[in-house]
Amino acid sequence: MPNDKMPLWILTTGGTIEKIYDEFDGSLQNRDTIVKNKILQKLRLPYTEIHVKSLMSKDSLVMNEKDREFILNSIKYHEQDGYPIVVLHGTDTLEITAQFCYENYKEIRVPVVFTGAMKPLGFDDSDAPQNVIEAIFAARILTPGYYATFHGKLFKVPNVKKNKSKGTFEEIA
Amino acid sequence: MPNDKMPLWILTTGGTIEKIYDEFDGSLQNRDTIVKNKILQKLRLPYTEIHVKSLMSKDSLVMNEKDREFILNSIKYHEQDGYPIVVLHGTDTLEITAQFCYENYKEIRVPVVFTGAMKPLGFDDSDAPQNVIEAIFAARILTPGYYATFHGKLFKVPNVKKNKSKGTFEEIA
Amino acid sequence: MPNDKMPLWILTTGGTIEKIYDEFDGSLQNRDTIVKNKILQKLRLPYTEIHVKSLMSKDSLVMNEKDREFILNSIKYHEQDGYPIVVLHGTDTLEITAQFCYENYKEIRVPVVFTGAMKPLGFDDSDAPQNVIEAIFAARILTPGYYATFHGKLFKVPNVKKNKSKGTFEEIA
Amino acid sequence: MPNDKMPLWILTTGGTIEKIYDEFDGSLQNRDTIVKNKILQKLRLPYTEIHVKSLMSKDSLVMNEKDREFILNSIKYHEQDGYPIVVLHGTDTLEITAQFCYENYKEIRVPVVFTGAMKPLGFDDSDAPQNVIEAIFAARILTPGYYATFHGKLFKVPNVKKNKSKGTFEEIA
Repeated sequence: MPNDKMPLWILTTGGTIEKIYDEFDGSLQNRDTIVKNKILQKLRLPYTEIHVKSLMSKDSLVMNEKDREFILNSIKYHEQDGYPIVVLHGTDTLEITAQFCYENYKEIRVPVVFTGAMKPLGFDDSDAPQNVIEAIFAARILTPGYYATFHGKLFKVPNVKKNKSKGTFEEIA
Repeated sequence: MPNDKMPLWILTTGGTIEKIYDEFDGSLQNRDTIVKNKILQKLRLPYTEIHVKSLMSKDSLVMNEKDREFILNSIKYHEQDGYPIVVLHGTDTLEITAQFCYENYKEIRVPVVFTGAMKPLGFDDSDAPQNVIEAIFAARILTPGYYATFHGKLFKVPNVKKNKSKGTFEEIA
Repeated sequence: MPNDKMPLWILTTGGTIEKIYDEFDGSLQNRDTIVKNKILQKLRLPYTEIHVKSLMSKDSLVMNEKDREFILNSIKYHEQDGYPIVVLHGTDTLEITAQFCYENYKEIRVPVVFTGAMKPLGFDDSDAPQNVIEAIFAARILTPGYYATFHGKLFKVPNVKKNKSKGTFEEIA
Repeated sequence: MPNDKMPLWILTTGGTIEKIYDEFDGSLQNRDTIVKNKILQKLRLPYTEIHVKSLMSKDSLVMNEKDREFILNSIKYHEQDGYPIVVLHGTDTLEITAQFCYENYKEIRVPVVFTGAMKPLGFDDSDAPQNVIEAIFAARILTPGYYATFHGKLFKVPNVKKNKSKGTFEEIA
């Protein structure tokens, strides 16, 4: 069935990528997932059947072990279907969650691709659309395992870490 | 050198993706390559060193054998550097040019990824940014050979053809 | 009632401003009014109650006397409500239609503001949003009469004509 | 000289309209004026010669009497040229600054139009472009005096105040 739609899960956790501007108090906060309206609606994906599930809406700096366990449990739960998974995550601790999954469940049987953004989705020059396009594309073609995609580059977990001063991720040699 | 910039060629040939609106006569025409200003400027590609070369500015319906020979010769010329190549091409004959290359030069030693767009780059709902992001990402990670990327899907040349009624490409089983 | 919503009519006639790209044949055509989805949805107008009516969907170069009579009749019909009127019109004959109204019905009792665009609404650098914002703003505050707004400038009909080489309108001294 | 360019001053003071996202700490702050690159560059104003001057870069909640005196002094200084003035200002105390000017210098001889935004300029659904387009248009055609424009409506100072719960300004009867 070469032209069938491939199902794909997007699990959202919050992070900069989904921060929303509050016009009343002028703050940027994680309230709800906005990836559907702000990105997916604008993409053309005739061969991908995307399901979005919001696991939590957290700044990744305040994520704890319980949050990571829940993310991994959710990945395991959706792995049963055999479809690729994209995880949207705050960049500050993306590598920690990715490594947590890698160390606690190496036997993953689908591709799991982590991504996020340096600038929230609502900005006209956000890097979120690019990163999400790359993550979806990568998740469809990669072999099972944990990955991160960011700014045009594919990383294999656990060989990835944020480079704060450059505002991107880099490979650990 | 895991974090070095990878050089990558984008060869442009015209097509819908690069049609420009003429405010004086109200026409859409291929005049010059606009991929730099309209897409690349907006992407974050800290690990990719993109070189754009305009081979021609043609509606792909008027391309002939000579044009295709020139495109293949240009691919061969840039193949020497060993870096991946993206070819921007009109969708109406993209599959013909891709097959021409495949049949006349199977021994290609770098990944060559063809893409284009259904709606020109200047439109706010153009599919061009998505297709170019996917093509660059794919070209960086694929093994040598001819490919097309379009609307989230990777195709192996020659198993690809346009589906005009659906406004996208599909796989030939 | 200083904070009540003011009703305002937008009468659309086609023209470059509302040309739509056809992905199947690559043409730009006037098919239907797109001003609601492409502009009005994005504006904040808490004090304006906008009603859009599509009179015709024509390139203004093919408009004839009958079309202009119909436009004027529509203006007269909506004038009865006493609310301001904005007319979206192709730029090539905007001045002709505006003068036709002026000459045949000088006694207009509401402000009627003509505008259009050099680049269709769907382009990311279209001048249509700016022109429509200005026309709505002007229509709300002007005294009865015929006007055009374009590129930041207010014109009094009949002292306005297109400057083709500059791609804008200018005042007739 | 009906088609000459009309000079017009835009005095910026900061406020939500010019808040910039800091990718390193995730904050929104007033650092510099961004109205040139983010708005003016995208407008077509062949008959307006805009000069932008940044007076300060402040959240309007922290503005004090000294700031307001400086804003009024700057208005007086530029009034000498006889050209219209637009003042970009945070919405939280826009009405206070406008009234301060009105009370301390009623004899203003040019139109002075205050505006701002509920959502910073960098967001794809910011109200800033609309408000700035309206303010420039209004400043060009109004008689001397103090005004505010916001969300399609023209207000006469001092009959204007923010309606926080509605996220806009309203007229004081």
